[in-house]
Amino acid sequence: MRELSVKTDSKIVLLVLDGLGGLPFQPGGETELEAASTPNLDRLAEKSDLGLSRPVAAGVTPGSGPGHLGLFGYDPVEYLVGRGVLSALGVGLEMTKNDLAARINFATLDPSGEISDRRAGRIGSDEGSRLVDLLNENLSIDGVETTVRHEKEYRAVVVFRAEGTSGSLSDTDPQKTGLAPLPVEPQDSSNGSQKKGAAIANEFVRQANEILADQHPANTVLLRGFGMHPALPLFEETYRLNAAAIASYPMYKGLARLAGMELLQEGRGISGEIDALEQNFAGHDFFFIHIKPTDAAGEDGDFDRKVSVIEEVDALIPRITSLEPDALAITGDHGTPAKMKAHSWHGVPFLLASDYTLPTSSKFGERSCAGGSLGTFPAQEIMGLLMGNALKLNKFGA
Amino acid sequence: MRELSVKTDSKIVLLVLDGLGGLPFQPGGETELEAASTPNLDRLAEKSDLGLSRPVAAGVTPGSGPGHLGLFGYDPVEYLVGRGVLSALGVGLEMTKNDLAARINFATLDPSGEISDRRAGRIGSDEGSRLVDLLNENLSIDGVETTVRHEKEYRAVVVFRAEGTSGSLSDTDPQKTGLAPLPVEPQDSSNGSQKKGAAIANEFVRQANEILADQHPANTVLLRGFGMHPALPLFEETYRLNAAAIASYPMYKGLARLAGMELLQEGRGISGEIDALEQNFAGHDFFFIHIKPTDAAGEDGDFDRKVSVIEEVDALIPRITSLEPDALAITGDHGTPAKMKAHSWHGVPFLLASDYTLPTSSKFGERSCAGGSLGTFPAQEIMGLLMGNALKLNKFGA
Repeated sequence: MRELSVKTDSKIVLLVLDGLGGLPFQPGGETELEAASTPNLDRLAEKSDLGLSRPVAAGVTPGSGPGHLGLFGYDPVEYLVGRGVLSALGVGLEMTKNDLAARINFATLDPSGEISDRRAGRIGSDEGSRLVDLLNENLSIDGVETTVRHEKEYRAVVVFRAEGTSGSLSDTDPQKTGLAPLPVEPQDSSNGSQKKGAAIANEFVRQANEILADQHPANTVLLRGFGMHPALPLFEETYRLNAAAIASYPMYKGLARLAGMELLQEGRGISGEIDALEQNFAGHDFFFIHIKPTDAAGEDGDFDRKVSVIEEVDALIPRITSLEPDALAITGDHGTPAKMKAHSWHGVPFLLASDYTLPTSSKFGERSCAGGSLGTFPAQEIMGLLMGNALKLNKFGA
Repeated sequence: MRELSVKTDSKIVLLVLDGLGGLPFQPGGETELEAASTPNLDRLAEKSDLGLSRPVAAGVTPGSGPGHLGLFGYDPVEYLVGRGVLSALGVGLEMTKNDLAARINFATLDPSGEISDRRAGRIGSDEGSRLVDLLNENLSIDGVETTVRHEKEYRAVVVFRAEGTSGSLSDTDPQKTGLAPLPVEPQDSSNGSQKKGAAIANEFVRQANEILADQHPANTVLLRGFGMHPALPLFEETYRLNAAAIASYPMYKGLARLAGMELLQEGRGISGEIDALEQNFAGHDFFFIHIKPTDAAGEDGDFDRKVSVIEEVDALIPRITSLEPDALAITGDHGTPAKMKAHSWHGVPFLLASDYTLPTSSKFGERSCAGGSLGTFPAQEIMGLLMGNALKLNKFGA
């Protein structure tokens, strides 16, 4: 791809409705996308290639990390990114190859040494932020630059910068109350980098417990999702794209930063994200737009709310198409069927509008996508399709 | 494949309409193949598997080399063949593993040392042929067996046979007039084989300039598309097929020879190619037939002419089916939509007729293929499908 990519003036938009894919509650029924009234998406389908994109592998349900890495053209099995890294990037921490990241939950430790609340009574963001300041002011680990950053409510992230560490480490979160926190352990006890990473993390927990001793209910920290910053090939190098991302949630900002995308300042709500697209359309040639509420509604099992979110997006489509992107893809990172209240492995409806398509339907829905000209294909191929349709790839071979 | 293939009496025909895949000019419209009146192909579709075959990778537009290598079952990314090699094989030069090939353009060198015409005033084939003879009579490079062969008009090909050379060399063609020809350079200046190849090629140019000095406008040669003969696994070995090729253009003959196919003498036009099939049907068990005018019409942006060529082929289908091949595939090596006036990345309509198919449509067209029983699949799988449908593959495993 790197050898074929050429810099052109054409523009690509990748609009991701998180968890877009759905299921009918009953066999004869419609999915969320099929049930939604989507006149604008349907009109777009009439000039688009349709297909079902498969996130990772048959039957495999992806997390948000692999789901998005696939959309960005990376092999999600080869490039595994720890949750800690995603959180760190999402809150705007710059990471280097020496950085080890982990997610923090503030939690409640009983006098008996057992966890009585894994979320410290769901303390608010003000309190969480104050505790993060307390940790940053008082923590000191020899030879390690330690940065804690608040995320939201009881959640934070820590980054340890030190030479020769590894992120192959176990969590401290026992995942249930009534159990003691676990020590951080190297996955391979003979590996020096892993041992060093575990020692740093355990020292962090020891000091945090001292610093937070009087801060009940948030008197301890649980660490999970350890990982090093992965060196992903950047969009600029692979596709020669000056890529921008519009996302309202930290993790998706983090994923976009991993790929080398510039984060644009979004406005309020979905409409505010389209504002950001309009305001910055001239300055970039690739835009990733992430819309979260479809997934949240699916996770809540709320079919009707997911339908409403899809209809809200549909109403905004003319604002995107009037910018006349040369290639516009609309899809999800995975399914989150309300019926399952969870992510799923199913093929995700995919639509690609350009001047060079073979339209097969006047409806954007799972079943029309199943019969589309793209068939069922790996999500990793989406970037190639977008590059091809935007005429940004040279011919391969004589 | 090599372990499963068995020799049987069954016969396979692979009919390739170059650049067959098309696009509608307007979203609601038909493709070239859909617009064509093809009663014979449609009747065949009624007893065929249909699908869309993908040449190289999503969004990637193949040249003729990778397009055909994929059809022949080779990984087109693994087996990259230089244009020089294709030309050499196409004009009937036998190549060995010590052979380095390049394409030649006769060109015009100004007294100032700059190229004033990259095609030497498009000299005719008689003149081109005479100049090639002149070069062959007068050239002599120590330790190198040098063969120049005329292709057409101002185009020729040269093969250097010498131990220990490499084809990773730069072109001398500056691609524009008003510039001096470039010296041939090794891609890696520390590589001995590449340095040897470059030295041979530069000596060739030096001698050719002396020999052609008085032959204005064709007083120099430009070299491009250097490459060594690639050692492809042969059809005979991989599939136990005694394969034959019917093609009217040198490059496709060259590709077929790379795979080990015997070239059959074709008659005039498309009908003359079918004559060759009929005359030789008893002597081989695999036939590759290449039809060029579909691609040429697409490249010209001539939708109607491409439709006419498809209809001309359709009228000849009964002559093929009456030979009763056990497996007959009809497809293209890539799309050449008239709308794009160029090769494209799109899925290529594919039809496979045999006694063991699952027909889904009574129409051969892009959209009926999208909904076919083969779905969308890599072109590399076509040989496996043909072998299976001709009952030439043993069961895999107990």
